Amino acid sequence: MKYPHSNQSYSTAALSAFLAMLLLLVSDRFAQLHAESSPAPPLKVAFVISNSANVIDMTGPWEVFQDTTAGDRPGFDLFTVSESADAITITGGLRVLPNYTFSNAPHPDVVVIGAQEGTAHLGEWLRARATDSRVVMSVCTGAFKLANAGLLDGKKATTHHEFWETFAKKFPKVDLQRGNRFVQSSDVIYTAGGLTSGIDLALHIVEKFYGSEAADRTAAYMEHRRSSAKEDTVSSAL
Amino acid sequence: MKYPHSNQSYSTAALSAFLAMLLLLVSDRFAQLHAESSPAPPLKVAFVISNSANVIDMTGPWEVFQDTTAGDRPGFDLFTVSESADAITITGGLRVLPNYTFSNAPHPDVVVIGAQEGTAHLGEWLRARATDSRVVMSVCTGAFKLANAGLLDGKKATTHHEFWETFAKKFPKVDLQRGNRFVQSSDVIYTAGGLTSGIDLALHIVEKFYGSEAADRTAAYMEHRRSSAKEDTVSSAL
Repeated sequence: MKYPHSNQSYSTAALSAFLAMLLLLVSDRFAQLHAESSPAPPLKVAFVISNSANVIDMTGPWEVFQDTTAGDRPGFDLFTVSESADAITITGGLRVLPNYTFSNAPHPDVVVIGAQEGTAHLGEWLRARATDSRVVMSVCTGAFKLANAGLLDGKKATTHHEFWETFAKKFPKVDLQRGNRFVQSSDVIYTAGGLTSGIDLALHIVEKFYGSEAADRTAAYMEHRRSSAKEDTVSSAL
Repeated sequence: MKYPHSNQSYSTAALSAFLAMLLLLVSDRFAQLHAESSPAPPLKVAFVISNSANVIDMTGPWEVFQDTTAGDRPGFDLFTVSESADAITITGGLRVLPNYTFSNAPHPDVVVIGAQEGTAHLGEWLRARATDSRVVMSVCTGAFKLANAGLLDGKKATTHHEFWETFAKKFPKVDLQRGNRFVQSSDVIYTAGGLTSGIDLALHIVEKFYGSEAADRTAAYMEHRRSSAKEDTVSSAL
């Protein structure tokens, strides 16, 4: 090979080396970013419960997350958490023993809060999770718990259709969305409509972390027809 | 009033009296029949659970039945029942305390059995309920438990789509229906496909007892789009 202009060839070599290093740095940064958006499974999911917790608000998303696989691994690792370790009676009289309490629960990546009575330190716990978890999602009137904790002020949100009026009056600072199946309220917070709407929000969270193919596969396994965020299954059913 | 033909008028009076008595008897029998098809609410619903019971197989129908009203009364009264009173770990690690055992449970009008490990006397208990309950319904691979108990021989039935082949090989006497959301197997027995299919079968049972308006109202409250028995949400999702 001929180098008629050696200075130029040295410059080319230096430039190539510089570009190669830049490429390495960029690809490393890209890998980091990619890891942030697609964390190593399983992600930990905390289901907050207290007396009168609604059954399907919790168990709809529970089934979605338990049925999701990420490659050959489970996509999520689930647990219930409450203020105390005592048995809890949820709707219809179902009796549940919490896996953890607020004080000994593992740090969750995802938090699910459905309709329920609530406990003394629930608001405080939710505010902390809104800063250090990846997703905090409400189902049904679980949105009232997020709003009570001040987490929805100035944000879009939704709740069960029978509670729209009460919600709008109680939380005038929240931009209530009526008729959406679910709403993204912030980078971290999502709110679903009533009951089975939580299934579709959970599938949306699966899609966020593991892609649409994983979410569709989970829905098919569950023999569930997915609904989009904007789909209004309330007005169409009423 | 004139009775020119007194014998004839007595005959007419006797005939009228006979017809009146017949009408009373028929209407009484009609009322009895009507009471049988529309019993006084709430109907008792037993949800059979054992280790590894699938969460939404149980909780989908649970939510349907708990949300159904019949006039101003709850349509159903729900409880979990298992072989023993010990806490049970169901799918995803949810811990449930059974409300009753096989030996102390109230007599159920409706029995729901989803996917689960099973216990020693489950088959015997199911056979007894198939003779003295109004409805015994399986969800998902709960159909294997009914088939193991001999309750589906010579009958139409369905199960979760991933288990069609296994079911067909194991129970050649059962007429497996592939792709239906749910199937009526006999006067008493009904079988649903996988997971969320149980929600639509439960709504069908609500309709059976309390009419289509009650079932539609429950579905609307749950923000759930009903699917018919024949609707194939498996093939369309795959």
